Amino acid sequence: MRKYVYSFGGGRAEGNADMKNLLGGKGANLAEMTNLKIPVPAGFTITTEVCTHCYTHKGDYPPGLKGQVEKALTRVEKAMGARFGDCEKPLLLSVRSGARASMPGMMDTVLNLGLNDETVRALAAQTGNERFVYDCYRRFVQMFGDVVLGLKPQSKDGVDPFEEIIDKKKAVRKIQYDTDLSVKDLRELVEEFKSAIRVKTGKPFPEDPFAQLWAAIGAVFHSWDNPRAISYRQLNKIPDHWGTAVNVQAMVFGNMGNDCGTGVAFTRDAATGEKRFYGEYLLNAQGEDVVAGTRTPKPIAQLKSEMPRIYRELEGVYKKLERHYRDMQDMEFTIQKGKLWLLQTRSGKRTGFAAIRIAVDMVTEGLISKEEALRRIDPIQLNQFLRPVFDREEKKRAVESGRLLARGLNAGPGAASGKVVFNAADAEEWAGRGERVILVRSETSPEDIRGMSAAQGILTARGGMTSHAALVARQMGKVCIVGCSALQIDYRAREMRARGIAIKEGDSISIDGSTGEVISGEIKTFPSEVLRVLLHKSMKPKESSDYRYYAKLMAWADGIRRLEIRTNADQPDQVANAVAFGAEGIGLCRTEHMFFEGNRIDSMREMILAENTEGRRAALAKLLPIQREDFKGIFRVLKGKPATIRTLDPPLHEFLPHGAAEVKDLAQKMGVTEERLWQKIASLREANPMLGLRGCRLGIAYPEITEMQARAILEAACEVAKEGIAVRPEIMIPLVGMAKELEMQKAVVDRVAAQVFSEQKKKVSYTVGTMIELPRAAITAGEIARFAEFFSYGTNDLTQTTYGMSRDDAGPFLAKYLEERIISSDPFESVDQEGVGYLMRLGVERGRKTRADLKVGICGEHGGEPESVKFCHRVGLNYVSCSPFRVPIARLAAAQAVLEEKAESSKRGRKRVSA
Amino acid sequence: MRKYVYSFGGGRAEGNADMKNLLGGKGANLAEMTNLKIPVPAGFTITTEVCTHCYTHKGDYPPGLKGQVEKALTRVEKAMGARFGDCEKPLLLSVRSGARASMPGMMDTVLNLGLNDETVRALAAQTGNERFVYDCYRRFVQMFGDVVLGLKPQSKDGVDPFEEIIDKKKAVRKIQYDTDLSVKDLRELVEEFKSAIRVKTGKPFPEDPFAQLWAAIGAVFHSWDNPRAISYRQLNKIPDHWGTAVNVQAMVFGNMGNDCGTGVAFTRDAATGEKRFYGEYLLNAQGEDVVAGTRTPKPIAQLKSEMPRIYRELEGVYKKLERHYRDMQDMEFTIQKGKLWLLQTRSGKRTGFAAIRIAVDMVTEGLISKEEALRRIDPIQLNQFLRPVFDREEKKRAVESGRLLARGLNAGPGAASGKVVFNAADAEEWAGRGERVILVRSETSPEDIRGMSAAQGILTARGGMTSHAALVARQMGKVCIVGCSALQIDYRAREMRARGIAIKEGDSISIDGSTGEVISGEIKTFPSEVLRVLLHKSMKPKESSDYRYYAKLMAWADGIRRLEIRTNADQPDQVANAVAFGAEGIGLCRTEHMFFEGNRIDSMREMILAENTEGRRAALAKLLPIQREDFKGIFRVLKGKPATIRTLDPPLHEFLPHGAAEVKDLAQKMGVTEERLWQKIASLREANPMLGLRGCRLGIAYPEITEMQARAILEAACEVAKEGIAVRPEIMIPLVGMAKELEMQKAVVDRVAAQVFSEQKKKVSYTVGTMIELPRAAITAGEIARFAEFFSYGTNDLTQTTYGMSRDDAGPFLAKYLEERIISSDPFESVDQEGVGYLMRLGVERGRKTRADLKVGICGEHGGEPESVKFCHRVGLNYVSCSPFRVPIARLAAAQAVLEEKAESSKRGRKRVSA
Repeated sequence: MRKYVYSFGGGRAEGNADMKNLLGGKGANLAEMTNLKIPVPAGFTITTEVCTHCYTHKGDYPPGLKGQVEKALTRVEKAMGARFGDCEKPLLLSVRSGARASMPGMMDTVLNLGLNDETVRALAAQTGNERFVYDCYRRFVQMFGDVVLGLKPQSKDGVDPFEEIIDKKKAVRKIQYDTDLSVKDLRELVEEFKSAIRVKTGKPFPEDPFAQLWAAIGAVFHSWDNPRAISYRQLNKIPDHWGTAVNVQAMVFGNMGNDCGTGVAFTRDAATGEKRFYGEYLLNAQGEDVVAGTRTPKPIAQLKSEMPRIYRELEGVYKKLERHYRDMQDMEFTIQKGKLWLLQTRSGKRTGFAAIRIAVDMVTEGLISKEEALRRIDPIQLNQFLRPVFDREEKKRAVESGRLLARGLNAGPGAASGKVVFNAADAEEWAGRGERVILVRSETSPEDIRGMSAAQGILTARGGMTSHAALVARQMGKVCIVGCSALQIDYRAREMRARGIAIKEGDSISIDGSTGEVISGEIKTFPSEVLRVLLHKSMKPKESSDYRYYAKLMAWADGIRRLEIRTNADQPDQVANAVAFGAEGIGLCRTEHMFFEGNRIDSMREMILAENTEGRRAALAKLLPIQREDFKGIFRVLKGKPATIRTLDPPLHEFLPHGAAEVKDLAQKMGVTEERLWQKIASLREANPMLGLRGCRLGIAYPEITEMQARAILEAACEVAKEGIAVRPEIMIPLVGMAKELEMQKAVVDRVAAQVFSEQKKKVSYTVGTMIELPRAAITAGEIARFAEFFSYGTNDLTQTTYGMSRDDAGPFLAKYLEERIISSDPFESVDQEGVGYLMRLGVERGRKTRADLKVGICGEHGGEPESVKFCHRVGLNYVSCSPFRVPIARLAAAQAVLEEKAESSKRGRKRVSA
Repeated sequence: MRKYVYSFGGGRAEGNADMKNLLGGKGANLAEMTNLKIPVPAGFTITTEVCTHCYTHKGDYPPGLKGQVEKALTRVEKAMGARFGDCEKPLLLSVRSGARASMPGMMDTVLNLGLNDETVRALAAQTGNERFVYDCYRRFVQMFGDVVLGLKPQSKDGVDPFEEIIDKKKAVRKIQYDTDLSVKDLRELVEEFKSAIRVKTGKPFPEDPFAQLWAAIGAVFHSWDNPRAISYRQLNKIPDHWGTAVNVQAMVFGNMGNDCGTGVAFTRDAATGEKRFYGEYLLNAQGEDVVAGTRTPKPIAQLKSEMPRIYRELEGVYKKLERHYRDMQDMEFTIQKGKLWLLQTRSGKRTGFAAIRIAVDMVTEGLISKEEALRRIDPIQLNQFLRPVFDREEKKRAVESGRLLARGLNAGPGAASGKVVFNAADAEEWAGRGERVILVRSETSPEDIRGMSAAQGILTARGGMTSHAALVARQMGKVCIVGCSALQIDYRAREMRARGIAIKEGDSISIDGSTGEVISGEIKTFPSEVLRVLLHKSMKPKESSDYRYYAKLMAWADGIRRLEIRTNADQPDQVANAVAFGAEGIGLCRTEHMFFEGNRIDSMREMILAENTEGRRAALAKLLPIQREDFKGIFRVLKGKPATIRTLDPPLHEFLPHGAAEVKDLAQKMGVTEERLWQKIASLREANPMLGLRGCRLGIAYPEITEMQARAILEAACEVAKEGIAVRPEIMIPLVGMAKELEMQKAVVDRVAAQVFSEQKKKVSYTVGTMIELPRAAITAGEIARFAEFFSYGTNDLTQTTYGMSRDDAGPFLAKYLEERIISSDPFESVDQEGVGYLMRLGVERGRKTRADLKVGICGEHGGEPESVKFCHRVGLNYVSCSPFRVPIARLAAAQAVLEEKAESSKRGRKRVSA
């Protein structure tokens, strides 16, 4: 018969820490602690397979379970010297959930199980503490009623029938606190609770301890599918089919007197990573008292003087556990009548700062290898090192005093405070006179770029994690909150409202882009230490411990990774930042952003409004020197690192105004009639601009645009090369779907190059390549590679077309799709490996078949998302490119990809050996 | 050494009719006629390989060519008993192009080559006809100057320098016609031409016949790449790399006296296909005289009395040629001094009527097999049998009298006349009171459906061959012209203008959807004979010879094809038509069209405006009985043939009005504020609706829509089944990109089905399947097939997403792409076999791997395009589905696919045998 129940405690365990999938994290660790001879109340774990079995068999348990549970229970009784349901020395049990991954508070727990009118008397006699025992009984009946019998109201405003009874009792007794209830009161409450249960469920409260046990086990298994647990799994990408284990364990009590207590402890500081034992405890208390906050817990150091023996024992335990697990542990303990019991140990949650410090320190201490350290860090946590930070205390006070206005999506991490402005022009103007501003918009568009750049932070009411605002903000490293739908913005009145509070233009707000919180008023911010070292140079490396840990980890990652890491950037300062963050070149320089700066937009508009090629050429001639200077700035910063520069991509209408006033202005400026301008705007309007005249289709319709851009790039390259600085321009043609498109655009570039080199009497080497961002490009990659020296996957567009889903429109239904588990993650955030990934593999395969040394990268937003970076590694890409602030994330993820690959191949190796 | 020159004439030839690729059509046929002992002036063909060599070697000829040409020339001299450049009996030559496929008039020709001041004298002496000889000389110098020396003006308004000289001469001589010029005039003209050449080119006219010959050969080769030829190849999909051959042939003259003549003849009637020898000729004339129209040619029958011997000889030749080629021949002949020479024979161009009649007759005559007959018909020609027709004479007169207004794209073939209206509502209203109307719009939208249906024809200023108007028109079988950009439509003034002519509302126009011509005024129309038999039953089959031929050919096609042919139709009358045309079921019933009829749109709008599920259900309840009746009508017509019915696909905003007045009306009708309605319209607006909330995304957002539709389909099926009529409903879910989407929608359908069957106490079998119209669907077809009983390729959407090109927006740049040969055909017309086709193959492969008996079809517009139908056959689809009027086309194309497959496999078989 299959084994469904694993015992632990009493000196030996049937499971161990490696059995998390079967026993859940809690059960595996209880077994492991038993094996380590650490005192754990005896118990047993019912495996996750039973949970899965229940769900696939309409709630039925597998045959044989009952016998195994009964046998295991006998072992518990023996180990604890008590008997379940016994009238003299009754054993009480806890029944808790325990999944593979921690899901704190999401599922149900029943404590003090085994109490009934008989056992309660025995326990009272045994402990001599009637009040304690009846309080346990009262709590048990209430918990059982709530959790197992389903009396707990489902909505937040619903009233717990038991709390109602207690309130009534307190009113009658004219007392304020539960602790003032007498033993009699408690006994009465138990009776009143039981009759409430009889009324509500039509059945009496089960006095039989075994009936209680099986009911509780069933309830805990079922809590795997309560709405809270489901949505937690969604958020944390935990598969539904994992299921939970159930741990049945002997109760121990920290509230039996002053030789009792309970506490939690961490082996290192979870906030900073500092190596110090810390935690909190309370004497004569139960775990929930520590959480409830009615009594203030004491720092763990005090235990040393209050209970020196216990403290020494605990010290021994924590050292043993950390050494054993080779990771920072978060432990729960209870002291019952002078005896220490460990109830739980697990890897402790920690901040990004702590995660890295602990990992690096443990390498120094010889506990773990560098590879292990790299494997342990969630790359996203590196964000914390780069973002400006709020003064922690000040923010806490602000929230507590009711200044929290709303929450949105945390699109650009970090902290920013400033005065609210409602349009990009104001942002620029105010910032120009030295104000710190937060740009608040319903949503942003490319016209807002300069205003976004001038602002401290960006807040939008609409849009998702990959909206224009979010994208640009990440690239600029701006603090940004998007999709803050609680905001009502009234542009005309120049104010926004949230929670009934009006914020007018010029009022201060603070936004926390790491949490999505919008708070009224200023809160002090600082650049992070690492930023102060890397960018502001206002701090020396050795002054910053954050920096030293960060730098060490990054160096290890760089030593291992195979992928090159580049950045998406189009301004010299952005590029400089990215290089400081470790970028080895530019993977995507979007030239269109350059056209919005200063007066450039005018020349751009002149070009668009031109009636013929000559007119366009004249306007482009004005843009040429400006673009050339941009590129020179970039080449100088890069000092020989490669720069992939993409020719014009967006549809032309994005460069034209759409409001009546702006159109009037522009018409005047351009010397055309308003009517003509409106006509032009209308003629450029498209039903589906994403699938319209853009990308290389523009360059083919107007080769003079590509000519100008190629000239600007190559003249800049020649001029900078003459300054003695190495240059590596790579010219990238967007939205190619047919080899011929690339062939034609490459011919333009090559022709211009020959002209420029002869004019400049200087040659530089350059390459021409293409974006692969349409399914057809991936499919015909073999043909396209005939003309491409490199490919760069534009996974934003490729995802849009592969799914037939517009990033701008998918928000509402993608949200529903995520909620209903139709998709497991947003394909615009993390590469869809099955669909889009298939095309990526195909493109690499076919491209390299034509041109074995084809360089292939990715420059979609996915290039900075860890799972996507790892996928790119596996597919055999040469590089990933992401926004500057994601560069460190990509570096670490790239290293992890190598480590995962090694683990995979050694696993395969082992399989071969054993086969 | 490679053979580049093939001789013919003088009783034997080196080539034959099978060598068209090498010798071009003309050269191969000249060789073949020689082999058939038909009198052909001797000559030789320089192969197409030389042309290709020239283009890949900067104009250089391959080595050895010169010697081969000289040797061949010697053979010509011997055969013709004359010598090139000889001062006594000079041989004159023609130099003509001749490509693999006929490109009439696109490339250059030089006649009378070999004349110079010496040979002209010899020829004059020899023929005794000085005027004829100097006229030849004059013509030669002019032609040589124009064609070889490049003096012909490139633009249409440019003046030919030689024509200028002639005009001057005629003015001086005070004469009107060229034929009035004296011998002296002609001699002077030759001198004046030559000095014009010297002035314009800086070089004298080459007197050396060999210099003339080589220059002419070069010019003819180069004319392969003149703009005229290039655009002809584009239109007719002739690859650039084929190149042309050059035919050098002894001149014979039909203008040496009254025992001379020239003519053209067809072995059968090219207009009707009737079996009769017909053609035209002129005595004492050259070929160009027949074309020029200055003299009226005589019908060939007269030759019988004028030259009985020659006529008999010609009769022998035509019979021999037709028997030999087993096809209707178009011949050119010249009679020189009582001797008949054949200058050319080729398969004659013919109308669709003629093509089918000839093919069927030839089968009856035992000349060709049924398979051969099927192979020969261009399926598109079947259109002619189904379309209404103009009175031919009346239309000709109308065009000649200047009533042709403009030309657009021939989107819906056939002829229609009626009064112009400018909106759909008027079309309905006018038609309601018995008017025949033509609906003229800038473009159409789904709201216009009823107006389109009421109109005789549809004319739009914008849109391409797959625009909404074109699509719907084809499905309805309406005459339609789209993209007629010369029209300026002024909705407010209720008029349109073209060529300065204003057409007001109510004025009559006639549109020829087969040619794209828009003509002012009425022209009488008739339904075609086949239509009168099939649909109108106003004629018995045996009264119509057209029908008998059509029916015979179709029966042969049906006996051979493997693909099932279905139709895209959503109204019982459409379905009935399609069945009459041979449809074996419905491949796509678009349910959304049904929502625009009558008051349904109101309930639809009520559904969209509902605030919650209940409101939507209430509105849907009103639609249910209406939809059910629609489906009942369809099932009754189908009598057990399968009906694939697609659930709602388009974005909801398509059902809402967008004009202020309509919004006001609707708000009143619905009892909501205008503001609320505008809000709703705004909230449904999407940046890229093609990639937005539509298809199954709607059904997932609002499962109640799918429920209602499934219920309507299945209730209808049950009720019709109870009437004793077999039903085969197939429910199709659109725009699936993930297996889970289909799984969920199928669950809705299956649940409703169980309910309906239990309510109705009747079960019918039904299937659930999906459109494959997104790249991701094709890639994940293996997963999707777990829930799909059938796939149907939606190649319109699949093309849009694979290319990242919106059908609504691609018009302008696709036109440019076609023009610049970036693509060889419009992927929205003919399946892109490389890109979209790859995904189709992949989807079939993966889908059938999961479900071996998976039925796969296509229901995009491509399903009625012959090349695409053949591709579908090769990919292994089970059926194609197209608009009703394309059903016969698809039937024939499907048969041809089988024949091509057989030919391919027997070719492979032969290869295997010979290997």
